[in-house]
Amino acid sequence: MPPTITAFENSPDRGRGQARDMRVRWALEEVGQPYDVRLVSFAAMKQPAHLALHPFGQIPTFEDGDLALFESGAIVLHLAERHGGLLPDEANARARAIAWMFAALNTPIVELGMAMLFERDKGWYEERLPVLRDRVRIRLGELSRRLGDAEWLDGAFSAGDLMMVTVLRRLNASGLLEEYPELSAYVARGEVRPAFRRAFDAQLAVFKAATS
Amino acid sequence: MPPTITAFENSPDRGRGQARDMRVRWALEEVGQPYDVRLVSFAAMKQPAHLALHPFGQIPTFEDGDLALFESGAIVLHLAERHGGLLPDEANARARAIAWMFAALNTPIVELGMAMLFERDKGWYEERLPVLRDRVRIRLGELSRRLGDAEWLDGAFSAGDLMMVTVLRRLNASGLLEEYPELSAYVARGEVRPAFRRAFDAQLAVFKAATS
Repeated sequence: MPPTITAFENSPDRGRGQARDMRVRWALEEVGQPYDVRLVSFAAMKQPAHLALHPFGQIPTFEDGDLALFESGAIVLHLAERHGGLLPDEANARARAIAWMFAALNTPIVELGMAMLFERDKGWYEERLPVLRDRVRIRLGELSRRLGDAEWLDGAFSAGDLMMVTVLRRLNASGLLEEYPELSAYVARGEVRPAFRRAFDAQLAVFKAATS
Repeated sequence: MPPTITAFENSPDRGRGQARDMRVRWALEEVGQPYDVRLVSFAAMKQPAHLALHPFGQIPTFEDGDLALFESGAIVLHLAERHGGLLPDEANARARAIAWMFAALNTPIVELGMAMLFERDKGWYEERLPVLRDRVRIRLGELSRRLGDAEWLDGAFSAGDLMMVTVLRRLNASGLLEEYPELSAYVARGEVRPAFRRAFDAQLAVFKAATS
């Protein structure tokens, strides 16, 4: 039996591939593993059955035989360790690729995204937004300098790039990515990978079915 | 030669062991590996020599022969994979311990910490703080329910507990941890481990030397 992941029954990103199941779908497509998807409503995510899989009541989760995992980074790393194509063979390069996975997740981009999702109606939003945007700009400048004119962050495409591209894509609504042409091109290189396209189309089909 | 990590020359946490080098020191002590420390000033962290090690100009970094790593989670995972004592042998339990590492880092606690460090002087701070504290309370409640009366998050002490304890310790100044006695006790179990004590004393000695 293929592994089963969970995804939003009706994703708040309206099918733009910014929900975290996209990371897991993309990784599964990169390593060529079929998978099943169980869609969950916001109500179901907070029920005991889902909380047993994900203590914080979120998506995605990953079930494969006796193993149940949560956290998109952990699921992608698990897949990358068990299948070829997402981590280099050489030990040091492999450790560096994993470092980029952590770096992708530990970023002010997450905080900007939280503010744009949950603080729009707050009295402080308009005053705080520029501060957050400047914090993200500093990070994007540093990342852009490190990337330089390389195709990927550290040699061949890896799980580190997969995570970084999905995190940078969350800036789509902010207009910030466009200020860093090297990073826009980097994200675009990720988006044209056939595995990305298949993953994107799969999550978009879910959203279309839910709203048709 | 032992590996070299970097740490603050003069830590803003005043030796309370909340800087991220503490995670790496603790992991090195748990696996019984000696290490050297290179102290860096805030100015030096933004210079090319350090940026070559850490693209975002932060600490800690980790150098071991040809390998240079950044991101505390990645460094702890690297150590846990190469030495015994921080990850279970059984494959599924190992994957779950790694999931807790990601879960520890991906948390509203980070955002509360950022606000308490960098937004105290902002006009919105007093209004936003209770919102952030409630967001953290939800997470702590979920974590507390998952932990239950267990000693550690998933069987034996692991790198997942190490990361979670260090992240929860960042709540010390907030008073929130005290609202969750099971979590306070969990953190205390981490803090009495001999490896934690050695790591804590080592970082405190650096702060004392810098300010004496």
